[in-house]
Amino acid sequence: MAQCLRPEQFAQARARTVSICAGLSAEDCALQSMADASPLKWHLAHTTWFWETFVLEPHQAGYMPRDRVHRYLYNSYYNGVGPQFPRPQRGLLSRPSLDDVRAYRAHVDDAMARLLEEAGSDASLTDRLGSLVALGTQHEEQHQELMLTDFKHLLGCNPLAPVYRAVAGGDTRYLPGARPARGDTQAWTGFDAGVFATGHQGAGFCFDNETPRHRVFLAPFELAERPVSNGDFLRFIAAGGYTDPSLWLSEGFDWARENAIDAPLYWRRLDGDWRVFTLHGEQAIDPGAPVCHVSYYEADAYARFAGARLPTEHEWEHAASRAPVVGQFADHGCLQPVAPGGDGLRGLFGGVWEWTSSSYSPYPGFAARSDAIGEYNGKFMVNQYVLRGGSCATPPGHVRATYRNFFPAATRWQFAGIRLARSV
Amino acid sequence: MAQCLRPEQFAQARARTVSICAGLSAEDCALQSMADASPLKWHLAHTTWFWETFVLEPHQAGYMPRDRVHRYLYNSYYNGVGPQFPRPQRGLLSRPSLDDVRAYRAHVDDAMARLLEEAGSDASLTDRLGSLVALGTQHEEQHQELMLTDFKHLLGCNPLAPVYRAVAGGDTRYLPGARPARGDTQAWTGFDAGVFATGHQGAGFCFDNETPRHRVFLAPFELAERPVSNGDFLRFIAAGGYTDPSLWLSEGFDWARENAIDAPLYWRRLDGDWRVFTLHGEQAIDPGAPVCHVSYYEADAYARFAGARLPTEHEWEHAASRAPVVGQFADHGCLQPVAPGGDGLRGLFGGVWEWTSSSYSPYPGFAARSDAIGEYNGKFMVNQYVLRGGSCATPPGHVRATYRNFFPAATRWQFAGIRLARSV
Amino acid sequence: MAQCLRPEQFAQARARTVSICAGLSAEDCALQSMADASPLKWHLAHTTWFWETFVLEPHQAGYMPRDRVHRYLYNSYYNGVGPQFPRPQRGLLSRPSLDDVRAYRAHVDDAMARLLEEAGSDASLTDRLGSLVALGTQHEEQHQELMLTDFKHLLGCNPLAPVYRAVAGGDTRYLPGARPARGDTQAWTGFDAGVFATGHQGAGFCFDNETPRHRVFLAPFELAERPVSNGDFLRFIAAGGYTDPSLWLSEGFDWARENAIDAPLYWRRLDGDWRVFTLHGEQAIDPGAPVCHVSYYEADAYARFAGARLPTEHEWEHAASRAPVVGQFADHGCLQPVAPGGDGLRGLFGGVWEWTSSSYSPYPGFAARSDAIGEYNGKFMVNQYVLRGGSCATPPGHVRATYRNFFPAATRWQFAGIRLARSV
Amino acid sequence: MAQCLRPEQFAQARARTVSICAGLSAEDCALQSMADASPLKWHLAHTTWFWETFVLEPHQAGYMPRDRVHRYLYNSYYNGVGPQFPRPQRGLLSRPSLDDVRAYRAHVDDAMARLLEEAGSDASLTDRLGSLVALGTQHEEQHQELMLTDFKHLLGCNPLAPVYRAVAGGDTRYLPGARPARGDTQAWTGFDAGVFATGHQGAGFCFDNETPRHRVFLAPFELAERPVSNGDFLRFIAAGGYTDPSLWLSEGFDWARENAIDAPLYWRRLDGDWRVFTLHGEQAIDPGAPVCHVSYYEADAYARFAGARLPTEHEWEHAASRAPVVGQFADHGCLQPVAPGGDGLRGLFGGVWEWTSSSYSPYPGFAARSDAIGEYNGKFMVNQYVLRGGSCATPPGHVRATYRNFFPAATRWQFAGIRLARSV
Repeated sequence: MAQCLRPEQFAQARARTVSICAGLSAEDCALQSMADASPLKWHLAHTTWFWETFVLEPHQAGYMPRDRVHRYLYNSYYNGVGPQFPRPQRGLLSRPSLDDVRAYRAHVDDAMARLLEEAGSDASLTDRLGSLVALGTQHEEQHQELMLTDFKHLLGCNPLAPVYRAVAGGDTRYLPGARPARGDTQAWTGFDAGVFATGHQGAGFCFDNETPRHRVFLAPFELAERPVSNGDFLRFIAAGGYTDPSLWLSEGFDWARENAIDAPLYWRRLDGDWRVFTLHGEQAIDPGAPVCHVSYYEADAYARFAGARLPTEHEWEHAASRAPVVGQFADHGCLQPVAPGGDGLRGLFGGVWEWTSSSYSPYPGFAARSDAIGEYNGKFMVNQYVLRGGSCATPPGHVRATYRNFFPAATRWQFAGIRLARSV
Repeated sequence: MAQCLRPEQFAQARARTVSICAGLSAEDCALQSMADASPLKWHLAHTTWFWETFVLEPHQAGYMPRDRVHRYLYNSYYNGVGPQFPRPQRGLLSRPSLDDVRAYRAHVDDAMARLLEEAGSDASLTDRLGSLVALGTQHEEQHQELMLTDFKHLLGCNPLAPVYRAVAGGDTRYLPGARPARGDTQAWTGFDAGVFATGHQGAGFCFDNETPRHRVFLAPFELAERPVSNGDFLRFIAAGGYTDPSLWLSEGFDWARENAIDAPLYWRRLDGDWRVFTLHGEQAIDPGAPVCHVSYYEADAYARFAGARLPTEHEWEHAASRAPVVGQFADHGCLQPVAPGGDGLRGLFGGVWEWTSSSYSPYPGFAARSDAIGEYNGKFMVNQYVLRGGSCATPPGHVRATYRNFFPAATRWQFAGIRLARSV
Repeated sequence: MAQCLRPEQFAQARARTVSICAGLSAEDCALQSMADASPLKWHLAHTTWFWETFVLEPHQAGYMPRDRVHRYLYNSYYNGVGPQFPRPQRGLLSRPSLDDVRAYRAHVDDAMARLLEEAGSDASLTDRLGSLVALGTQHEEQHQELMLTDFKHLLGCNPLAPVYRAVAGGDTRYLPGARPARGDTQAWTGFDAGVFATGHQGAGFCFDNETPRHRVFLAPFELAERPVSNGDFLRFIAAGGYTDPSLWLSEGFDWARENAIDAPLYWRRLDGDWRVFTLHGEQAIDPGAPVCHVSYYEADAYARFAGARLPTEHEWEHAASRAPVVGQFADHGCLQPVAPGGDGLRGLFGGVWEWTSSSYSPYPGFAARSDAIGEYNGKFMVNQYVLRGGSCATPPGHVRATYRNFFPAATRWQFAGIRLARSV
Repeated sequence: MAQCLRPEQFAQARARTVSICAGLSAEDCALQSMADASPLKWHLAHTTWFWETFVLEPHQAGYMPRDRVHRYLYNSYYNGVGPQFPRPQRGLLSRPSLDDVRAYRAHVDDAMARLLEEAGSDASLTDRLGSLVALGTQHEEQHQELMLTDFKHLLGCNPLAPVYRAVAGGDTRYLPGARPARGDTQAWTGFDAGVFATGHQGAGFCFDNETPRHRVFLAPFELAERPVSNGDFLRFIAAGGYTDPSLWLSEGFDWARENAIDAPLYWRRLDGDWRVFTLHGEQAIDPGAPVCHVSYYEADAYARFAGARLPTEHEWEHAASRAPVVGQFADHGCLQPVAPGGDGLRGLFGGVWEWTSSSYSPYPGFAARSDAIGEYNGKFMVNQYVLRGGSCATPPGHVRATYRNFFPAATRWQFAGIRLARSV
């Protein structure tokens, strides 16, 4: 579905990216903690490169790139554009400096402003730019979330446990919205069997991997009304869940042993109590908040422990398609998931991404674009699992019921949690 | 579905396992070529251990194991039974000797014969044994196929390119059934949309992962009438398919580069011509025979090259459910796939396993048994892809339309090939 | 030998360390290119920690460390002091910031100034501090050289090939002192057999590994009068030296193949010509300059190619003990080795470190100190080879004829070259 | 020094190699437990290949190799002969079979017998063969020792702890010669300073690495009169020696931690008592016997624990040059070291190889032969340490005072122990 040109969204997205680095030093922005994570500086540059490569170069007559080496340095994985500086070495580039990257952003922002202004009086250009600008905006938003998760990982490697952002009032022991765990047991919402449509439709933006909309048959199932909480997960730990092979996928159990995993990422035991590193500093565990930073393996093992299973992505979407897209997103003020409020089926959106049991595969009839942008999604459709719903690090307005996020089963540095399902 | 007790199937399966080693030396049976493959001797022992552990110990009063260390040495992955001798070290056991393993087989076969005879006059025992003996028989058959693939891999590491079995007449240049590639292009059979049942039903044996039978919605699709041939695949190679990233899953392209993969496993180029190592020795490529020993990555890349895709396992099953289970199985005389005869949709069974695009997942409502045998299938349901239809190394009578084989995407030492599908 | 207290040397060394970072950004100072190399910021902090830990804490009554976490973060390898932040993760610390490290330096420098002033009127304290301050100064100088080699390695990973320091006049194509290779063949200086003393003696400072002075017997030998030049080494490359196993230690040949080594580190071939990355930017090869950034394996292979061998460290020291300690050190203005001037035996000091054939072993009767400082040298005396003479990155005044540097055989990021010897 | 032709030594060596495999199965002879160890079958073939390649092919007119593929399969590391089948894959060759290897031995033995007979009447041939046959015999003896160490390692991986050879009387708890540890403390023998000749001289056979004989200066030193015993080493373990970094070379301490090393190889703790796997089966530790199967790192750490050091190879040779070459060699009946009898300096020969502190380097003036046989020793002279004296697995008559064995510092599967030295 072609998108209308929305210049104000471009400007908002660009500004929001910069604001994530507010108060951070050039050192903070330059380091890379692992191959899967990138330096903030690289995100600042790569999102800029995206506009330059896919919008300015094809559509701005006479556009002059600021530096030809950017095409190599800041290309993430688009073979159609050319070779790429190796991902694990992104943290070896002290030059170009952060200041240079900021100048690169300004250079591209200026050119984009001119192009968008030009489009105001050129209907053909407006048509050509609409979908591209929408895609670039969404792309920039995806990197905004990665900037938070990647920087959290870097700080999490630091024995000083630095604070990224103080919470309001400066008290980092209690997060806004945190509250004692309720004594309630998990409640369930049921869904009837049927053939349902899944995937995106309508005029709004979506990624190609959400299409084509198609029919699936769902058997009757129930969905847990809230995500699994830290309190729930503490019981799994206390019951020896991490050392009982009968609860685990074989590969997951081996993974946990080889990596000496005995709790979610960022948890550590101090004098017998579990504490958790957050973007607001290290804190006590909030038993009522959703458990977070678990792998697919841990999510699956917990579900088995609880006598349940993970939902498929189609079950999740079927349930979520009726719900408003509200929840704890990155504008909430707290960058750690808190217990979702309300009653009934809640917390589907925001808070934590929810692992589904669905392998990331193309929808029937899916076809990637044949140009370089077509490398956006399709070529990653193997050995990854779909997560749904967004997290407390997701920009507000970014996700929808049909949105498909995806990561390998061992991934833990994303804000990923668990929602249970069961067949009936 | 409870199975009737079929003592004659037990005896046939046991005899067939031994026959696979006929003519092989103790050295042949002791070596292990990689962690994924096991020595033939280990297969001989492990299948025996299965009967001892799951049938004799629980059901034969006073059964005395031949040696308690077998419980450790020959346990593959059943945590519920106890710890396991590490898989990558199975090739370090010169003792117990092959003769000892044969004596172990005789010990267990004798005890089984007594138990089965006893069952002839004990209806309760007959009932209890029926499904277990069926499972043990099927398990033994699965290992018969692995014995061929594992031993082929071992011989394939040997610069002498040894012959496992001579083909009839002793001429290994031309396999029985081999013939020049037909000039025909690929033809397609179409299927209409609908909700269809998938998974096993009826009185015959099946593995737990084929259940429960459940409904799926299928959009209209077409299935290629024959597997992709060596001739087809040679065109992929000639067109630079292995070096064009636009054809590949990103992970697959990296895999091919890191492992310097430029042809199916067992192919090598000699003076400009491709040759292939088979269980009948090294041979010229038969362009009409199905391409074999390719990974999921290669299968997926070829499909994209051909403007098609891999079928889902449900599409495959839907198409195969109407077809008779006939084809080139391990009793064919040739242990290398040959062009399937006939017209129309053909070669679904036997010849080569066919990669599907389906990740190996539990069917809705699937529940593994809660005892040790429950570890048979369920705990492997992550990061593997489903293959269907059996191969020229599969024992005759072993597979059916609902049968789900599964391997990681990089697997190549199985007799795995490609059948194309496309959405319409 | 106890050392006199030399406060001015302390001040000079501290100032020189800071000057190495002049003009560099916080980003430049924070990154780590490999486990063997450390960020500049870490060097700034660690050298400071050394003074705090080994001088201030034991000898300054009431000294208050600026931050207790420094003891952990900036301890390199002294188990006697306590646990150490893992070396490969030194590049993950965006905090403490470069500014914080500078404040730490100021804190310690202030306290040292007070202590040294106090020592001016306290003879006992003067006595206690003399050798410690000398050691700390030498330690700081060693890190000054590592700062150059480590930062060169970081810049060398950067496809922009950044310039660390412009050479005088700004022309980076021709280094000061560079000149065309002379046509002369290598000349040799002979030495007679005898029992000679080796190791340090006298009142000046030395490291413990240079002691005790002891006698060795040397057979007659000849030493090449100049280091092997780039021109010499280009002939080795042109003759296929890197691919001829008969020239190599077996382990070295394997190392070269596994790492695809076909030239010294920092060399790359551009349009058929070799170019070299230097701290002054990328340049043409100067055929007359000493070859540099070669491993022990390459040095040994070249020697065999040249019909010679590497000298032992005792041969080298015997020859150098008669020579003045002059040469191209880090105050020369060019941070890339240039052809040594003069005639006869030349270039022994400065320019390039010279690999010897001697494994790094304790001298007879060597005993490390029993406290934490005793971990300085002794515990590294295995699987390393001795280099002698200093390089163009070595602080002036730092080395002497008895000075023993040491690195593993595969090391290339140090300014290490080759001098030939032969038995007669 | 040219060697006289000794045909009977050839015959004895060949027969002894075969006798080591007496009673072993084809399976025993085919397996490979690690890259450093080879299958027995490979040793049988490689020693045969040595005669074929270096004696028969150059000196037997019209010699026909039994199979050209042997040149590739059984070449260990002689690049001058041609490419080599990869060492880590030697255990993947079920073909050629053990029977085939035996036929290969017979083929070569027959040809050798004819050649040696011919030499009886051909003085020129006799001259040419003398040194070659001596070298081949010594080479075969070296592999005889490796056959025992490699097979011990294979059996040591087997949880059955199989017995290679029963000791006399069949009682494997007490080895012949074992006796309680004496309460005596270690005694020392002193040596005066001086210039001494080291290296081989005289008419007997030696390897090239023992030459040229040359002078070294030795400071006064003392040598422990007996090897370090198991009882001594148990005190090191009990004192926490494995976890005290102040006793270790830094690299050694990391090695021990990474490999979870807390005792010599083949030791395991059973119900609080240490037991040891031997070629005679698993046994209690004999506190009086020399400790064995320790790495250079462990030997060095123990020496530091004991307030001593390892001897240099020249100190060792100087002391041993006066001693008769008697001790516990492989004809002793017990293939596990026992306490050396007698008084004073004892156990220098046989029992256990003794680690020296000397890196394996060429003697001054050493030059390897320029042909393929020249690859025998010289190309391994890096990152290895010299061991002296032979072990209980060394063929009788094989070693001498000048004999230099060498292995990397982490090596443990050889029969290597510790003798202390100290400077005075």
